[in-house]
Amino acid sequence: MQAFQDLYPEDLSHCYGCGKNNPHGHQLKSYWDDDETIALFTPKPFHTAIPGFVYGGLIASLIDCHGTGSASAAAARAFSDNTQAPPRFVTAALNIDYLAPTPMGIELELRGVIRQVKPKKVLIEISLSAQGKVCAKARMVAVKMPESMMI
Amino acid sequence: MQAFQDLYPEDLSHCYGCGKNNPHGHQLKSYWDDDETIALFTPKPFHTAIPGFVYGGLIASLIDCHGTGSASAAAARAFSDNTQAPPRFVTAALNIDYLAPTPMGIELELRGVIRQVKPKKVLIEISLSAQGKVCAKARMVAVKMPESMMI
Repeated sequence: MQAFQDLYPEDLSHCYGCGKNNPHGHQLKSYWDDDETIALFTPKPFHTAIPGFVYGGLIASLIDCHGTGSASAAAARAFSDNTQAPPRFVTAALNIDYLAPTPMGIELELRGVIRQVKPKKVLIEISLSAQGKVCAKARMVAVKMPESMMI
Repeated sequence: MQAFQDLYPEDLSHCYGCGKNNPHGHQLKSYWDDDETIALFTPKPFHTAIPGFVYGGLIASLIDCHGTGSASAAAARAFSDNTQAPPRFVTAALNIDYLAPTPMGIELELRGVIRQVKPKKVLIEISLSAQGKVCAKARMVAVKMPESMMI
């Protein structure tokens, strides 16, 4: 099973968070798990906030890339005939509640639940958990990448 | 003038986004500018989303660290007698609207407006601009770091 992000077109696969063509980045990979989406990621030791805990910016990054990847996959599943690459989505709005400090040294699990799918707009809820404990919850509005971003 | 983040205690200065003791990180520095707060940051070439534009996770990271730094400074200004280090704040909620793609290769300006200051809770509005154009706006709830995070 291919990751959502590995189906992006080559020239749109440079995202620091999830692009396979960005050797510096996190290379997050998201997949279907029945009707939900899932991604796993273990932060590096230097991704720290307060010592012992993951910094909020990484948490936001992982949620962001899992969300746009999930939006791409959801739109492709709903509207595509599989003859072309899934549409690329970008983030319009991201609301994150940090519910508990996220511990370092543990594989984090991101889960996405698709709440609404339109061809150019997808609403997603995403949770980030460590060993079964939800540390952050988010709601995202993802929109199809505007043509103006093709440079 | 010292950056807010450089006044954090040494053992709480390891944040990837803004800690002076994290050599891998962004080392964001925030300052007062009259009653607003300001930070400047130029993304690295690999902090890309779609080629030509900054990835949303970095934007969230910068907003997050500028926000918690601003909260620390605002609480210190409101309640401290300057005999001890400013209180350390963490993010409880972060709502970001991505209004326009953020161009690469340009120094970004973050501005914070303090909306409410209580000893353990600060509300802040933050904007991120490139050459005067606002690319993202955010609202943050920052709360004083809980004792349980001191490990």
